[in-house]
This record gives sequence, structure tokens and C-alpha cells, in this order.
Amino acid sequence: MDTDTSISEDLKLAVLEKIKPTEAERKELMAVQDELAAEVKAAAEKLCVSDIFVKMVGSAARGTWLSGTHDIDVFISFPEETSRKDLEIRGMGIAREVAKHAEYAEDRHAEHPYLNIVYKGFDVDLVPCFRVCSACQLKSAVDRTPFHNEFIKSRIKGREDDVLLMKQFMRGGRVYGSELKTQGFSGYLTELLIIYYGSFEKTVKAASSWKPGKKIDIMQHSELEHSEPLVMVDPTDPKRNVAAALSLDKFCMFIDHCREFLKSPEIKFFFPESPLPIEDKEFLEKLESRKTSQLAIVFETPDVVDDVLYPQLYKMEQAASSLLSEYDFSVIKTGVWSGKPQTVVMLELISGTLPNVKKRTGPPVWVREHAEKFKDKYEGAENVFGGYIENGKYVYEVHRKYTTAKGLLEEQLLNCSLGKQVYQSVNKGFEVIENAEICRLKDQDFRVFLRKWV
Amino acid sequence: MDTDTSISEDLKLAVLEKIKPTEAERKELMAVQDELAAEVKAAAEKLCVSDIFVKMVGSAARGTWLSGTHDIDVFISFPEETSRKDLEIRGMGIAREVAKHAEYAEDRHAEHPYLNIVYKGFDVDLVPCFRVCSACQLKSAVDRTPFHNEFIKSRIKGREDDVLLMKQFMRGGRVYGSELKTQGFSGYLTELLIIYYGSFEKTVKAASSWKPGKKIDIMQHSELEHSEPLVMVDPTDPKRNVAAALSLDKFCMFIDHCREFLKSPEIKFFFPESPLPIEDKEFLEKLESRKTSQLAIVFETPDVVDDVLYPQLYKMEQAASSLLSEYDFSVIKTGVWSGKPQTVVMLELISGTLPNVKKRTGPPVWVREHAEKFKDKYEGAENVFGGYIENGKYVYEVHRKYTTAKGLLEEQLLNCSLGKQVYQSVNKGFEVIENAEICRLKDQDFRVFLRKWV
Repeated sequence: MDTDTSISEDLKLAVLEKIKPTEAERKELMAVQDELAAEVKAAAEKLCVSDIFVKMVGSAARGTWLSGTHDIDVFISFPEETSRKDLEIRGMGIAREVAKHAEYAEDRHAEHPYLNIVYKGFDVDLVPCFRVCSACQLKSAVDRTPFHNEFIKSRIKGREDDVLLMKQFMRGGRVYGSELKTQGFSGYLTELLIIYYGSFEKTVKAASSWKPGKKIDIMQHSELEHSEPLVMVDPTDPKRNVAAALSLDKFCMFIDHCREFLKSPEIKFFFPESPLPIEDKEFLEKLESRKTSQLAIVFETPDVVDDVLYPQLYKMEQAASSLLSEYDFSVIKTGVWSGKPQTVVMLELISGTLPNVKKRTGPPVWVREHAEKFKDKYEGAENVFGGYIENGKYVYEVHRKYTTAKGLLEEQLLNCSLGKQVYQSVNKGFEVIENAEICRLKDQDFRVFLRKWV
Repeated sequence: MDTDTSISEDLKLAVLEKIKPTEAERKELMAVQDELAAEVKAAAEKLCVSDIFVKMVGSAARGTWLSGTHDIDVFISFPEETSRKDLEIRGMGIAREVAKHAEYAEDRHAEHPYLNIVYKGFDVDLVPCFRVCSACQLKSAVDRTPFHNEFIKSRIKGREDDVLLMKQFMRGGRVYGSELKTQGFSGYLTELLIIYYGSFEKTVKAASSWKPGKKIDIMQHSELEHSEPLVMVDPTDPKRNVAAALSLDKFCMFIDHCREFLKSPEIKFFFPESPLPIEDKEFLEKLESRKTSQLAIVFETPDVVDDVLYPQLYKMEQAASSLLSEYDFSVIKTGVWSGKPQTVVMLELISGTLPNVKKRTGPPVWVREHAEKFKDKYEGAENVFGGYIENGKYVYEVHRKYTTAKGLLEEQLLNCSLGKQVYQSVNKGFEVIENAEICRLKDQDFRVFLRKWV
């Protein structure tokens, strides 16, 4: 037992019992991995491709996967001198051959194409890559993965449980996952933290006192400055920050999660209660109690992968908020929920309406040319209530163009800077619904989101 | 005719016809001044005070008074070596003796006491002062006046009409008067401007291009830096700024008035139409059209002179506005009206109500000690809707203490920094009335104020 910790072994065991793959699970996964390796080799032979290796990478290959997840990453490694085109043709050829024995297959694209298949219930990525001699000489981002795999495999032995605990702990704090939707911690980053700090407990304790700019450089070989809140220099590439995708808020949420856990180490930090969908009645009561204005921009979810969708949704959230602020509406908070078939951008405002009067303050009276231009524009003009001098400046009370946030969004949202697919979808049609009307949205997952929202 | 101007002689004559005292008026004033001088001398003899001089000062004495004004300033001048106490006892003794033949008398107090009387329909100030040898060696502020009088009298000859035009022009622009209520141009300042620039037209043209920091030093003897928008170094005292009482806004209003007049020189700039009291119906229509929130704080007018009252009212206006802003209400403008028996502080707001939710943003999560204190205070506390992390900081949505501006003012106005007499009056009782309710205030002068307000 570690004397350096107040976290009981019982608690850790209770968590591990739920998340550690059973011996049967492990055997099944190994068997499927072996089968897949054989399938790839057979396919290569069939297609007369002789110079490839098959590599199992990812958490499945390193014994750090959470029970219940069924992800396998199979890398098909080509000699470095292979042309990119050749790699794609021959690599995808092999993958498609393997896919003939799969339940399902889908072409996907990262930096270059790969195949996602469902094979005996496992979610398998078949990824062609180059066999480069070091991670800093890679020809494609995926070429790094085998090096990560080697680094972790050679150091993680005996600490796999700590990795599992940390992954589940991060899930409980909603900070696990480096996709652009989550902007949290990747599996590789989690493993490196455990290697660096030595255990789950030590990592939690250290992270409680993290500050933005925290830098960890296991190999002491950093070559660049980074501006992200956490810098974990890639042990296999001195230029790369493994934590580049981690947002400031997820970084802080993790710090907060660690501190709260250390105050009272309980199982709920690993398995938080999942909130129930909010009912109409509760939602209406919350509206009545908050007395703010709730706006929901509703449109059809664009048919693109999350890594394309979410950055565009976050951009839209920002754009809508800026638009409202520009026209004097006070935004309390913004949020995004996306499901099928609809996506909702939520905005909470101090008020969804503003008076007709808007105060326009001009230049100081003594800056003659500008001041006179300003006065000429407003004095006696239509839609001007009146003017006066305040703090040495001309001030005119003019009619406000948009007195409702809903009207403003309906007229101006499409003029905001939006991502391509989100723009296309919003352009096809969107609706702004307010307050009690939001009860029209019945999706149960949205209702879970809405409970946290109010 | 001045070739340097586009202002017609006809216009000036038309104005002068209305404001220049008639020969009969002039004779009457002279006769009353002579009588008063004789009265003072007789009173001094009666009281065995032998060493005084009587001096007629002010615009009446310099031929620069506007027809219809009936103000006479009589200075009773004592030798410099007189003690202050002696000056007060003997000076006020003489004044009170004169007052026996007046229709009305009232003790007043500036730096030292003086007597205000109504004598044959004229408003007369009887002011005891010291006979110092130069304005910069004065023992009391009023001792300056005789020096001002001499300076102007010796230089204004032939330009009295320009002074009259300028005074009336300033009245038309609502910038004439250096009392603390108006914070505009004094008569002496107006006369100095005419002496410096040479004529009404030249002053108007020059002022069109004034900028704050404008400095005029007729005697080229300035000894101090001043921070006021206009600096007119007193020709009789190198340390004093004659325009010290002029506020930035009145300075700017005068510039604006000059520019507009030069664009189209019309009589309305001297005699603007006086607005009619607003009727209930019109006021309600304006409310409906503006859709803002109007608040009126109503209380009994304290029984003090304007120079004491108005600074306190302006202070209260500021204090109420700051209080509202501090609690998140958006103030569009503020105003003050004072009559008998009531005073009204007007406040126009974007909205008189706010939602229950108030967002409190704490320190960054990584500033551990402060962040934890902040979190401890709000997490799970009563009256807290919920919390989250935003831009690296803890944010809690708490119940707003004051959701109405009226409620806030009713509870907190007396805790603001208020002047003595205004505090006493507000403390006796005040009312905050809103929007249509303001129709309850029937005072016709207030209704004139209200027309300009909306």
C-alpha cells in the first residue's frame, strides 16, 4: 500500500472491478487481434504485396483499454520509400480485402484514407502507414502511432491499473477524449502522465496544483515553446505537444475534479450519476425561477463526422453570442447540443427584448470635423428621438434596429462567419424558439443537456 | 458695418431692441443707485462709522445689464486693517439700517454675511468688504469685485451692446450663469471675452473652434496651471481662473451654439421657443414609443439656496446612477428638477427589472487559495442555481438580490453618499415612482422639464 496517499485500496479495487477487462474479455480481444493480423497478411499475399508489416497499436495492444470498449487499431506498415499514392492504393486494397469478412465497413479520411470496420463485434480501424525510422521524420501523422505504442509498452508494465483508473476518473470529470468535441485528455496523454508521475494518486495530487503553462518533458528534449495550458512534450517527437488539443476549461475542470476527489475520495468521481431528461413541468418551473430569456437556434444536423461538426458548432455559438452582444443583448451563457436529426445552439440572455431607444455617443464636440459629421447624420433625422451633449460628446437617442434577440438572429445569423457545412444546413432553414416554446424539443438526450443547462 | 461677419446689423438691432435697457429704465436705475449710496452714507453717519466708501459694482454699474433685470450690487468698503469681526458687525449694522427703508430684507451668507433687500422693486445686495490695494491681496472673495468693476469699466466703453448680445445669446444656449446650478458663463467672464475678442461676432467665431484647455490671458501674467476646459486668467489676479465654474458640457454647449448660429444666424438663438408643459397623453405616448423604464425619485425640496442645493442634487443623481449600475441596471440618462415643494431625480433605464440569475465570476481555478475560497462560498449554497468553469474561472449563477430598480433604490438610496440637506430631506421620506405613474406629478414647470426629457 502506498503510504503517500489517502485513497483507499478498496476504492481503487471497487473501480477496477467495473472497468478492468476480465480474463475472458482479454482472451477474446487477443484472439480477434491475432485473427485480424492473419487476415491482413493473407490479404497482402493475395494481392501480391510482400513488404508490409502488421502492427497492433492503441490501448488494446498495450493492455490499457477499459472494459466494454471494443476498439482495435490495426496498422498496415509500408516501407518508407513507398509513394503516398501507392500506399493508399495498396493499403486500402488490403483493408478492403479484410473487410470482406467484416459485418460492416466504411471509408474514412484523416490525413489519408483508412477503413473502419466492425469485425466480430469489435470496432476496428485498418490504417495504412509508412515505416519511418523515427517519429520526427514521419510522412503522415498516423506514422507516429507505432512509436507511441513502443514507448508506452516498454514503460507501462505494472501500471496498467493506474492508467485504467485515471481514464475512468477523467471520464467521470468529463475531460476524457481528445476529439474536437471534447477537447480533453487523450489516452496516450493519460498514459504519459502515469509514466511521469508514477501512479494514479500521484498524478491526481500533482494536478491539483497545476497552473497553465505546466510543462512535462519526460525525455528532456523539448525543442519548441508552446502556448497551450498543458505541455506534454512527445517522448517520440521533441517538437510536438501531446496535450495540444486540451482546452483551458478542460484543463481547469480536471484540476477541479482532482481537488474535489482528494477532499473526499468517493466512487462518484469515477461514476457520476447521469442526470435524467428534464420534464416540461420542471423546465417551466426553472424558467419561472430564473426569469432570464432562453433562446434555442434549431437546425438540421449536418451529415459530417464530429471532428468536423463540433468546431463549426463552437464557432457558431461564438458568432451568435458576438452578434447579440454587438446589438446590446447581454449573454449569460451559450451551449451546443447535437443529435439526430437536429442540432440546438442554446443562448441564455438577461433579456430577449430591449427598448426602442438606443444611445449613440459621438466624438467630442471639439473634434470639429468628426463631431459635425456625426451631428449632421442624426440631428433631426428620421428615427431619432433627440440629442444632447454629455461628457463633452454629442449623444443621440436613436431608434434601435433590433428590439428582440429572436428578430436579430433571424435576420442576421446567416451573415455571421459560419463553418461550411453548418452554414449550408442553417441556410436550408433554422428556427429560433424561445422560453416555454423550447418544450417542443422532445429528444431525451437534449432533455438531459437541458437539465444541466438550467 | 463689420465686414468680418455675416451677421446682419438688422438681427443685432432686433435683439438689442428687446434687451437693451430704455433711457427711462437707465434713469430709474441710476436714481435708485444714487439713493442707495446716500442711504448707506446716512446709515454710516448714524452709526458713527466714518471710514467707509460706497461702491456700485456689477453690471448695473458698468452699463452691461439686460433690460428687465433689476439687480444692484452695493459694496460697503472698509479699510484693509479692519478686523473681520468688526467688518461684519459694523457692515451688517449699516446694511440693516438701510434695510429699514426696504420692502423686504434677508440675511445671506457667502464667505461672510451680506444683506439682500428689495428696494423700490430692485433686488439689492448690500455687501461689506475690505478695501485692499490689489485683487491678489484680498482678505475675502468679495473684495475682488471692485477690481473687476474697475477693469471692465475702463475697457468696455463702446462695446456694451456686444456684451448684451453675448449675454442674451448665452441665455438662448442655456449656458449663461456661473451659479452651481448652471455651471455656465458669468457676466464678468462674458465681458472679458468681448474685451479680448473685440466683438460679439468675433467671440462667436473664435468659440466655434475652441478646444478644452483654451487659455486666454489678457494681461499675460498667468501664474498657475489650470485644468478646467476654459481658462480665462483674471486680469486682476494672475492666480485665478475666471471660468473655473464652467463645466465641460456647458463649454461644449456654447461651442455648439456658436457653430449652429453661424450656419444660420437667426433670432431663435437668442430667444428659443420655450416648450410647453407636456400633457399626460403625450407623455404616455412617448413612454410607449421609447419602451424604456422611467424612474422618478421624489422628495421634499430642502430649504437651502440653489448654490447649496444643486451640487447636492447633482451628487445624488450621480450616486443613484452608480448604485443602479453597480447592481447591473443600465442607465441611459439622469436628470434633476427642483421646484417647490418637491424635487425629482429622473433616471431612464434600459429596463427597470432584471432576471433572478446573476452571474458571479471568480478567480482562475489555478489561483488555488482564492479560487477555493470562492468555490466554498457558492458551491451548494442556498440561492445558488449552479456553477461551472468558463475561460479558466469558476462561475456561479446566484440569485440576484435586487431584481427591480425601484426596490434597489428604496432599500439602498439612503446608504449612498448624499449631501447633508438632501440626505436629511430624503431621510424624512421619498418615493420612487415609475413610468405612467409619473403622471401624478402635475407641477407645470416639471412638465416642461419632462417634455425635454422624453
